[in-house]
Amino acid sequence: MIPSIKPSPINVPSLDSLTSLLKPQLKEIDVCILNKMQSPVDLIPQIAGYLISLGGKRLRPLLTVASAELCGYKGDRHIHLAACIEFIHTATLLHDDVVDESMLRRGMTSANVLWNNKASILVGDFLFSRAFELMVADGSLKVLKILSEATSTLAEGEVLQLTSSYDLELNQETYLKIIAAKTARLFSAATEVGAVVAEADEAKCRALAYFGHTLGIAFQLMDDILDYAADQEKLGKAIGDDFREGKVTLPVIFAYEKGADRAFWREAFEGRIQDDAALAHAIHLLKGSGALLKTKHIAQDFVREALYCLDTFPNSSLKAALQELAHFSTHREV
Amino acid sequence: MIPSIKPSPINVPSLDSLTSLLKPQLKEIDVCILNKMQSPVDLIPQIAGYLISLGGKRLRPLLTVASAELCGYKGDRHIHLAACIEFIHTATLLHDDVVDESMLRRGMTSANVLWNNKASILVGDFLFSRAFELMVADGSLKVLKILSEATSTLAEGEVLQLTSSYDLELNQETYLKIIAAKTARLFSAATEVGAVVAEADEAKCRALAYFGHTLGIAFQLMDDILDYAADQEKLGKAIGDDFREGKVTLPVIFAYEKGADRAFWREAFEGRIQDDAALAHAIHLLKGSGALLKTKHIAQDFVREALYCLDTFPNSSLKAALQELAHFSTHREV
Repeated sequence: MIPSIKPSPINVPSLDSLTSLLKPQLKEIDVCILNKMQSPVDLIPQIAGYLISLGGKRLRPLLTVASAELCGYKGDRHIHLAACIEFIHTATLLHDDVVDESMLRRGMTSANVLWNNKASILVGDFLFSRAFELMVADGSLKVLKILSEATSTLAEGEVLQLTSSYDLELNQETYLKIIAAKTARLFSAATEVGAVVAEADEAKCRALAYFGHTLGIAFQLMDDILDYAADQEKLGKAIGDDFREGKVTLPVIFAYEKGADRAFWREAFEGRIQDDAALAHAIHLLKGSGALLKTKHIAQDFVREALYCLDTFPNSSLKAALQELAHFSTHREV
Repeated sequence: MIPSIKPSPINVPSLDSLTSLLKPQLKEIDVCILNKMQSPVDLIPQIAGYLISLGGKRLRPLLTVASAELCGYKGDRHIHLAACIEFIHTATLLHDDVVDESMLRRGMTSANVLWNNKASILVGDFLFSRAFELMVADGSLKVLKILSEATSTLAEGEVLQLTSSYDLELNQETYLKIIAAKTARLFSAATEVGAVVAEADEAKCRALAYFGHTLGIAFQLMDDILDYAADQEKLGKAIGDDFREGKVTLPVIFAYEKGADRAFWREAFEGRIQDDAALAHAIHLLKGSGALLKTKHIAQDFVREALYCLDTFPNSSLKAALQELAHFSTHREV
């Protein structure tokens, strides 16, 4: 029996505390993003602007700013670096939507559909490069090292996920490696960079990097659950995307390991029968076999680790907001 | 009448002098490339290795090494930076082949066909990121600034070319801007970085950067000509790729400006009639109207500029090899 997590200070944890605490900084980040995505080539600000306008949670930039300020930082480097991390994230979204042949992004038509795959690839490349330009302008080799390693790990994780598509032999350990690379690494780079610009000591830098890592895993596992269990309208994209793309996520690994209708899973993933009826049966099996719940418990383990990382910091409203964010990762509906 | 260029020291200029002079360094670069493209994710060295194995001229790494050594450099940073520039180039090739829907690359099946578009996009992203990791490991912010700006200009140029597809209103000035960004900028970064690691004075850095720029333009214009006039077997890719992709290159701009069968060009580009018969007629018009020759003359103007940049350096076999390279740019058949 997995022990339950201490409930958060408010009943339903949300991102609101953090975003309202850091509202002025978020505004500055948006201004910075808007400035830095400008280009004489119109299509670039058009596509980049479209993606940015869709909103999203701005989780990664929030993490950089929160980490820096939790370590007492007073300057504005964290704003620019937060913007540059959002650029990297936006570039990966553009390329992901091409790779996954997605039609929707945050409830709106995705850029690859609205423009085309070619534009999405090339504008993604531009945003990657512009992110590196911004990092170089910051001038810290330490920051550059963290972010360039993170970006290359992220790309490695994406390739690993691609080559693991449709592979029902994938196990929990390998799956956690994939999401550590493709999702959690940019989270941990975001938090670590915040600590580094604040010139926090080694222990605090490590604690915040690990906070980012564990939070990233928790968010990704919850994404995996929501892909089968969310309210489609709230989610802003089609339910079952992972299923249709042949992504073997942790819930599927658990259901298959448990032996819940293996023939069905083989037909779906190896035989590529992924129609609506198959998706409905997959959801039925994932819920019935306890695979979704088991995945959530794993995510909650990571949340506990994340909370533990924050112990080293003195109490403050910012720390409380980060604690709430950790709880939010597994309590959210989108 | 455009004055003719002084003939090069040998009758048919080639790359051979430069590659044989820098043979040991080229070997070191290949070792470095091979080491740095390794990854626990097998598909990455598979695809990257395939592209690298296709050979190509290794122009950009040669330029970095030659520039550094022309400025008297004795260390090995130029080897690592040359490898990293080749990574950036390889990444753009992977993405270009997806964007252009190419079937062939250097006479062999292209990676997007052999694997798929998804793999090409993601492995390209990995190579981009790995290139940045390598640059950061070099540790010079000056080098990082040159290469990050070049990469982002390159991406901008690619987007500009995409948005200018099928546009017969494109003029020489805008076209030269596109190729300055998408091709010449990485050439000039390659030469400038060589001068910078050698700690050459400002004037030499500028001269070598401009050498790279003018050489890059000359190479690209010659590529544009060869796309209509080359021997398909020697070229290693299909003749008429630009035509079929709707790329309005300088020869087409000249032919259209001269009024040579405008209705045909409009039908081909705006009406997208790009079959073999249309290609044959396009080649006929480009040759007959003198558009290919006029493009070659412009390329030769840039070669002259390139040669002029080398004047500031004392005579040496390396300088002579770079002069021959400049002549080679417009005398080559592939």
